[in-house]
Amino acid sequence: MSPKASGSKPLTSRNRDASVIAAAIEVMSEKGYAATSIQEVADRVGVLKGSLYHYFDSKEELLSRILAESHATMDELQGEIRAQGLRPYEELMEYIRRQTIWYLENRERANIYFTERRHLTGERRQRALEAGRTFEKYIQDLVIAAQKDGDIRQDQDYRLITRFLTGALNGVRFWPSRSGKQFSVEEIAEASVALVRSAISTP
Amino acid sequence: MSPKASGSKPLTSRNRDASVIAAAIEVMSEKGYAATSIQEVADRVGVLKGSLYHYFDSKEELLSRILAESHATMDELQGEIRAQGLRPYEELMEYIRRQTIWYLENRERANIYFTERRHLTGERRQRALEAGRTFEKYIQDLVIAAQKDGDIRQDQDYRLITRFLTGALNGVRFWPSRSGKQFSVEEIAEASVALVRSAISTP
Repeated sequence: MSPKASGSKPLTSRNRDASVIAAAIEVMSEKGYAATSIQEVADRVGVLKGSLYHYFDSKEELLSRILAESHATMDELQGEIRAQGLRPYEELMEYIRRQTIWYLENRERANIYFTERRHLTGERRQRALEAGRTFEKYIQDLVIAAQKDGDIRQDQDYRLITRFLTGALNGVRFWPSRSGKQFSVEEIAEASVALVRSAISTP
Repeated sequence: MSPKASGSKPLTSRNRDASVIAAAIEVMSEKGYAATSIQEVADRVGVLKGSLYHYFDSKEELLSRILAESHATMDELQGEIRAQGLRPYEELMEYIRRQTIWYLENRERANIYFTERRHLTGERRQRALEAGRTFEKYIQDLVIAAQKDGDIRQDQDYRLITRFLTGALNGVRFWPSRSGKQFSVEEIAEASVALVRSAISTP
């Protein structure tokens, strides 16, 4: 059954979809994908396992839906930022700032995105890989344009700069888990952008 | 049985230990920890499952040994670099360069380190967490010292700089998997250090 079909169901069914996704994120975060059972997700939502299969035909489909939602959110964010008509360099900084905030506010989702993707197979795997490439290409295109504008240093290959940026971005989800002073999401995002600016700007 | 005890066994047993660890790394990299079976590791080594239990009493013990070996290597690396008597800032850069190279040359091990740690329980978990803290503290102490020396920028909190550095370091294992031009391990390490230097140096 296509997730898209949920649009035509009554509101209660749409809420049910969201509850199932939320419960699946919880269980997968606690146990990891491999140890997660559909039974446990059903228990968490408070429905029978059979009724859950009405919405998701397999555990893999659940994982695929979680990742697809994360990708859709990133797409939307990119669209919003692109619409601001900033210089490529400033668009890149704004994207890093906002994507950092999203990761920090959706850490369980982000962790599943990074650690469980490899469990997808076949078409679902292809879709997830393609979405990952689109994400990296968005950043890389901005790096190329900003290098051309003279805003990003030209002594480093654009591919290495892109990987450095995706690494800095993806690593930020670990920041708050360390002991010591708690920083706000905004403080972390501002610090990350300030450090990245110094790293890649033309001196 | 303690892994330490292997030192007193004949050479063939010690090789066997190393073969088992290498096989476990392979299988866990392919399938993930949860889906890995001792049977499969035994098949890969070419021994009976029962004889493997002679060396490792559980799958968790195998994972724990893999992580302990990785930590021991990092400890050794830190000791070697510390012995060079560099300024804290330069020690930090040298550590990032060499740790980056280690991650790139031991990607399967590094991936297990980051994605499977959470499967450890009890004392093994405590040991792994403690080792992780030691690793981060080494970096943080260098950041504090280099900030005091005036080599690292003082407009950002040392904890945020530390997390930025560990993020950059940990993210580097994803760099070579992208499509496009292949960079050598040394090229990637040099680029990473150059970008990090610009990010954190006092302007």
